[in-house]
Amino acid sequence: MPDKLFTPPYYAVIFTATRTDADPEGYEKTADLMSELAASMPGYLGVESTRDPETGLGITVSYWRDLESIAAWKKQTDHTAARNQGRASWYRDYALRVARVEREYDFKAPD
Amino acid sequence: MPDKLFTPPYYAVIFTATRTDADPEGYEKTADLMSELAASMPGYLGVESTRDPETGLGITVSYWRDLESIAAWKKQTDHTAARNQGRASWYRDYALRVARVEREYDFKAPD
Repeated sequence: MPDKLFTPPYYAVIFTATRTDADPEGYEKTADLMSELAASMPGYLGVESTRDPETGLGITVSYWRDLESIAAWKKQTDHTAARNQGRASWYRDYALRVARVEREYDFKAPD
Repeated sequence: MPDKLFTPPYYAVIFTATRTDADPEGYEKTADLMSELAASMPGYLGVESTRDPETGLGITVSYWRDLESIAAWKKQTDHTAARNQGRASWYRDYALRVARVEREYDFKAPD
């Protein structure tokens, strides 16, 4: 289920990536650790993540209260180490976008 | 592969959704048509989309030059019809966020 809405303005970090075939266990383990670590950071609001096993494209959108929270997460030591390992081994390519959420809507089907 | 970068500022529409089990063929057909139609709209820059078949969560991020382009796409007649059908049949729940992309980075592994 999609994440609950927050209260704009807040920020989304849109991370789209394709993986290499290298070290899937190491990747999964580190990804889980990074999810836990991100969730413990000040200003973290939530995350939505999905990967299509056929195309290999993964999209992770994390939500943050402000740019300062994102900057602190970017500089967090274990996160920096994971990013370096990602570039060296796990990722074929990726794009990362920092965007300010200005409006939002949601929908839930009646039960 | 992730979409190429554009030139900020531009806008991202982050659409996260879970599907019902209803009418998968109708959904796929309409989704393909909507992708083509969106790509023909003024101000359209690109789209990235992925769905995890296990969790059913799909994330589609479309990129647009400005808010006017997004408003025109929202009002487009066939898109409005598809959205109504989505609410009536295909979607269990969704969230849609309109966000202004302010910064971006990318990475490509050496060949």
